[in-house]
Amino acid sequence: MAERLVVIGGDAAGLSAASQARARRGPDDLRIVAFEKGAHASYSACGIPYLVGGEVTDAESLVARRPEVFRDELAVDLRLHSEVVEIDLDRRAVTVRDHPGGERYREPFDQLVVATGAVPVRPDLPGVAAEGVHGVQTLDDGIAILRTLRERRPGTAVVVGAGYIGLEMAEALVRRGLKVSVVDAAEQPMGTLDPDMGALVADALRDLGIELHLGERLGGFEESHGHVAAARTENLTLPADLVVLGLGTRPNSALAEAAGIPLGETSGIRTDRRMRTPVEGVWAAGDCVETFHLVSRRPVAIALGTHANKQGRAAGINIGGGYAAFPGVVGTAVSKICEYEVARTGLTAAEAAEAGFETVEEVVESTTRAGYFPGARRMKTKMIAERGTGRLLGAQIVGQEGAAKRIDVLAVAVWHGMTVEEISGLDLSYAPPYAPVWDPVLITARKTAERVGRTASGGGRRS
Amino acid sequence: MAERLVVIGGDAAGLSAASQARARRGPDDLRIVAFEKGAHASYSACGIPYLVGGEVTDAESLVARRPEVFRDELAVDLRLHSEVVEIDLDRRAVTVRDHPGGERYREPFDQLVVATGAVPVRPDLPGVAAEGVHGVQTLDDGIAILRTLRERRPGTAVVVGAGYIGLEMAEALVRRGLKVSVVDAAEQPMGTLDPDMGALVADALRDLGIELHLGERLGGFEESHGHVAAARTENLTLPADLVVLGLGTRPNSALAEAAGIPLGETSGIRTDRRMRTPVEGVWAAGDCVETFHLVSRRPVAIALGTHANKQGRAAGINIGGGYAAFPGVVGTAVSKICEYEVARTGLTAAEAAEAGFETVEEVVESTTRAGYFPGARRMKTKMIAERGTGRLLGAQIVGQEGAAKRIDVLAVAVWHGMTVEEISGLDLSYAPPYAPVWDPVLITARKTAERVGRTASGGGRRS
Repeated sequence: MAERLVVIGGDAAGLSAASQARARRGPDDLRIVAFEKGAHASYSACGIPYLVGGEVTDAESLVARRPEVFRDELAVDLRLHSEVVEIDLDRRAVTVRDHPGGERYREPFDQLVVATGAVPVRPDLPGVAAEGVHGVQTLDDGIAILRTLRERRPGTAVVVGAGYIGLEMAEALVRRGLKVSVVDAAEQPMGTLDPDMGALVADALRDLGIELHLGERLGGFEESHGHVAAARTENLTLPADLVVLGLGTRPNSALAEAAGIPLGETSGIRTDRRMRTPVEGVWAAGDCVETFHLVSRRPVAIALGTHANKQGRAAGINIGGGYAAFPGVVGTAVSKICEYEVARTGLTAAEAAEAGFETVEEVVESTTRAGYFPGARRMKTKMIAERGTGRLLGAQIVGQEGAAKRIDVLAVAVWHGMTVEEISGLDLSYAPPYAPVWDPVLITARKTAERVGRTASGGGRRS
Repeated sequence: MAERLVVIGGDAAGLSAASQARARRGPDDLRIVAFEKGAHASYSACGIPYLVGGEVTDAESLVARRPEVFRDELAVDLRLHSEVVEIDLDRRAVTVRDHPGGERYREPFDQLVVATGAVPVRPDLPGVAAEGVHGVQTLDDGIAILRTLRERRPGTAVVVGAGYIGLEMAEALVRRGLKVSVVDAAEQPMGTLDPDMGALVADALRDLGIELHLGERLGGFEESHGHVAAARTENLTLPADLVVLGLGTRPNSALAEAAGIPLGETSGIRTDRRMRTPVEGVWAAGDCVETFHLVSRRPVAIALGTHANKQGRAAGINIGGGYAAFPGVVGTAVSKICEYEVARTGLTAAEAAEAGFETVEEVVESTTRAGYFPGARRMKTKMIAERGTGRLLGAQIVGQEGAAKRIDVLAVAVWHGMTVEEISGLDLSYAPPYAPVWDPVLITARKTAERVGRTASGGGRRS
């Protein structure tokens, strides 16, 4: 009899696992059932802001593989509108609620992949349930925002949260012609950057006409006929025909926890590098898991499609009898807000301090191309190095076109524990349309190395 | 008395050395004289094609630092039109010919930096001295081409050599409205790539309306009233109102060799990692030196502004009493030909074979951004890995906007001897405007790793 694999979650992690397991084991050997509680599977959640903003005109184009492909070509029994409400580890079965019909049924498994994703942080504030208050977690959320835009033609929007998703949504709504305010309790946007780099993002946002209300704690929402009308902070009342909650996410691990699958300290599901949970035959992947930060050497939970894909793939290969591992992360992320590009990798200064490092920092302004080449744009690169050793702990970039993807070079450098002095000697590509003769990466590394040299022995001379 | 430093060559390497030495030692401690035989110093030779093409409108903008800056701010006695014609190591002096006047004089030194650059390969063929036959080595060459364009309004151009410089010049002349033919003895353009990737470049060139004559050996030039009229190969006569020789360069090391400074097997000047030649007090940097390839572990001579800057800087720091090293290269290069982007790092398949590696290769087509994101462009990435170990030996990219700079990630990977399997797990940045959820780098590494797995044990199964 075929072994039975059940996958909970029909997005990047779950369906990567299903596909990879299938690639190695045929339907006679492995029966695969995948449950997705929503109406859509295998889509790019990261694309939602661009759907809302109008750069992407068709929600369908965010779907990587249509459900039929899984059913017909991969023999994966993908069931939409099917929410797994319980995992019974003793009896090796899940309980599924069929959403349109409402029936419940049990589905047995021999192996299980938990890929339940993340849940958006949703503040429990007055008015949060009003119409026009939207999350941006699922494709359905994106479609709902589009519907509000179409049907109510809102003129004002408040975005709650000035992190990646909040700012990408702010851009989207600016593109749609709305007057957009962003509210965040922090003093700078993009809390995943150091405050000095976040301040550059704040400047960029103001240039785009976005009103920033920083250091403002959200109090609730005012309603009018059941629809949101304003957002309230301690000090302000901001008119809002539309509210987007972009407060980030946490691992959606409640189902696993209820079943007795161990969670880590981040509330993500614990796995080893092969994506095995401590429970025999149970795997987990994607935004619901806890992973390992290679610099801080601490567990972290990072919701990101690229990790979800890699983790799901590794789980599937292992279930298929191969060997694959997810090695951990260095905290790389990138975002685009209109013409501004923002990226980071490794640890911020604060994260480095928390991990016990004493650091040396340097920020260098340079250009994306040779200064004389048309289209050269300004960018600032920050590096955070360990004092004494000069080891690169983290880097951040804020700039314009052509700036952000340079973070990948530094992600590899962080990965290898390179010193800034070593980085300054790297053989990076140079031609005037792509870089100044000293690439911003090289020049920042060089200047950080000089600073490391000056601070190595405590005090030292500053030139 | 101050020590006397003489620098031969007033471009990237020489003047970086001078600047760095000066930064560490004041004029009372170190007297610095720099000789430049041409009319310009400290300019971006890599920018010449863009000056000819018109993207850069002012030759002056290619000058990084004006001569006055060296003289007035850095106390570097920079002498233009001053050619060093002899180095006398016994008497520790150089002989200088003053070009406008023609006088010769001697200048003593305690320390010497040889930064004589490269000489263009110039075929000794009939008609090569005709007017309208141009090199593209110096800023004066670029200005001369501009003059020919202005004064003779040529309609046809032949570019000899389909390497980086030849193709960049072909683009420049296409931009100026000329009908451009490119002649090369090789079967594919861009001989620094593998032929399969070179073929992609050939397709791109033909798309741009450039006529390619590959596998054609140049025979000479026909003249009319002293001006070039056509280029002849064994099989063809190509009308040419303008000819550009883009056949690459070799180290300009004759002066050093005549003085007894040892050259390496590439004819570049031999140095150690601190840019010391084997002669006490004599340093060398830039296109005239031989450097070390970290993958082939062989000496190489690579003319590139970024290396020249780094080497000159290292020499200057060392002369100034600091410590700096040039660690070697991995052969990274990048070029832009209209909307096409071409990049490489590490070894080509042929270079790997010559260095004794048996290789596994994979080429993957993907997009620069998420497929659904506006402006996503196609790109092909090739990886060359060592059979068995899967170590990345080299990579090549041919694509459109946003493709080429990804080579830097792979340059770092090659630098560290990463395996393709390791690379596929890297934490590279992801957001739809910048990359598909599997970055082209990751997906190519993954597919190369799969191929390495299949070929590890000799033969093996191919799926």
